[in-house]
Amino acid sequence: MRGVWLEDRRLRLRDDIASPPVPPGEARIRVLLAGICGTDLELVEGYYPYTGVLGHEFVGRVEEAPGAPEWVGRRVVGEINAVCGECPTCRANRPSHCERRSVLGIVDRPGVFAETTLLPVANLHVVPDELPDEAAVFTEPAGAALRVLQQVHVGPGQRVAVIGPGRLGTLVAQALAGTGCELVVVARRPAARDRVAALGLRAMPPGELPAGRLDLVVECTGNVEGLALARRAVRPQGTIVLKSTYHGEVAVNLSAVVVDEVTLVGSRCGPFAPALEALRAGRLDPRGLLEATYPLADALAAFERAARPGALKVLLRP
Amino acid sequence: MRGVWLEDRRLRLRDDIASPPVPPGEARIRVLLAGICGTDLELVEGYYPYTGVLGHEFVGRVEEAPGAPEWVGRRVVGEINAVCGECPTCRANRPSHCERRSVLGIVDRPGVFAETTLLPVANLHVVPDELPDEAAVFTEPAGAALRVLQQVHVGPGQRVAVIGPGRLGTLVAQALAGTGCELVVVARRPAARDRVAALGLRAMPPGELPAGRLDLVVECTGNVEGLALARRAVRPQGTIVLKSTYHGEVAVNLSAVVVDEVTLVGSRCGPFAPALEALRAGRLDPRGLLEATYPLADALAAFERAARPGALKVLLRP
Repeated sequence: MRGVWLEDRRLRLRDDIASPPVPPGEARIRVLLAGICGTDLELVEGYYPYTGVLGHEFVGRVEEAPGAPEWVGRRVVGEINAVCGECPTCRANRPSHCERRSVLGIVDRPGVFAETTLLPVANLHVVPDELPDEAAVFTEPAGAALRVLQQVHVGPGQRVAVIGPGRLGTLVAQALAGTGCELVVVARRPAARDRVAALGLRAMPPGELPAGRLDLVVECTGNVEGLALARRAVRPQGTIVLKSTYHGEVAVNLSAVVVDEVTLVGSRCGPFAPALEALRAGRLDPRGLLEATYPLADALAAFERAARPGALKVLLRP
Repeated sequence: MRGVWLEDRRLRLRDDIASPPVPPGEARIRVLLAGICGTDLELVEGYYPYTGVLGHEFVGRVEEAPGAPEWVGRRVVGEINAVCGECPTCRANRPSHCERRSVLGIVDRPGVFAETTLLPVANLHVVPDELPDEAAVFTEPAGAALRVLQQVHVGPGQRVAVIGPGRLGTLVAQALAGTGCELVVVARRPAARDRVAALGLRAMPPGELPAGRLDLVVECTGNVEGLALARRAVRPQGTIVLKSTYHGEVAVNLSAVVVDEVTLVGSRCGPFAPALEALRAGRLDPRGLLEATYPLADALAAFERAARPGALKVLLRP
């Protein structure tokens, strides 16, 4: 079958990708629409070693599910960590950190930038009929956005900033806005601030963010400048949530973190069922986040587009 | 009066230090016993700029308190942050992070390695009669140890390690042990492990600490190796408390923090009243932490002793 193959930091479109038999407990899913994520771009840059079909954000239709035929024909999204259920971390009810996990299109598991993909049936969630593919494909980042609210208490009156008005940052901001906190989205580009404002959210340039005043800062840029801004803006005893990965090691003034008693919280994958419900109800609205949709055959052009500074979500349609 | 003066990274004993009048709201305290802390050694190394009398751990007797004569003659310890009570941070009930604070022997306020010192009366706590000076002088680090339990929930069955068996690490370990958690103190030197074991605590060398299994790691070494060990030992979604300051910027793999959803918590000064009570009741027992006591006249030798690797608490008696 056709798919986007990453090997030695080189991306290519292949038509000869094998379509293996469905392993026990898994389903073959025909990909309807897939999204290019920052992590995909980082994998291409070689931040992490991975060889194979790229991609983990998708909506699809179940084609084969030998052990669970009732799933065939259903439109689904899927959690990206395929877990063992038996290691100490799984048994401690932290399956997304399973010690033997494979991760769709990221670790030891072919991804979704292909005609079909495989996932355990246990990972699948049925997409509500009223949710179009173009919204459902945002379920994974929507879950990652909601994850912040599972980790940190946010409530009315708290002073909160989201740094980075991109795909993930905008969803995080929408998630936080629902708590009644006093929220601002920090964006360098005027066009990004306009886009954020059009969603009914408050936006400001980095220079206007007050120093040392915010209860919570969610860093969604993944760059050192964003982290430095978060550090400057958070109040003593405040919290910084790190929502993006960083390239290599980052120099951090940990003494200042100690003296100001700041808390840093790493935040990754989130819950799919609440994400689908938030998308369905419109509390998370990804409509303004779409950059472009490309056919799978034009995947390389799609990746170029996605890598442009300030690019929003680029989708692939197999 | 006599005191230990730091200027341009040079420590000297001076006999000509001025003894200014007592400012409104403050008290003059005759220092009975003072402790050399890791922060004092870092100030001498020039990690932070400070010129003046060094020292912030002490027990003393109030000599003058113009606005509060009832304090005269009382044996006291004192909180080290002198705060304004009026800035937004004070008004938000975070006075130890006051934006205009001076800090005893650390920021803009002469310290306690002298015959007398000054502190606001509001900072003072009466020492219970049954607590000897040699225990009361540990109130500040005992409070810093208890601070961990104000910031992080620790309970029975949790797997916890304290890295660093020094003065602060041992007090932190004693504080945590009271929660019923499954506690281990990590120490490189066999002698330190023996000392920890003699306190009824479990000790192990760094190499025996399992990887990725601990719910909570409290890093008390302030060195990069200790931080790396904490990072390796903590489980996914676990917490690292940073109890010591670090020299300069530290390179941290923040991506791993994000992927494993680790929480880093900076932790500094703690509550004095619970510290005095824990010392009185013997839940925190600093008796095994004493390295040596020097007269103030031998302060430079005392500093040399305190700077030796593995040195415990060195006290100064004015």
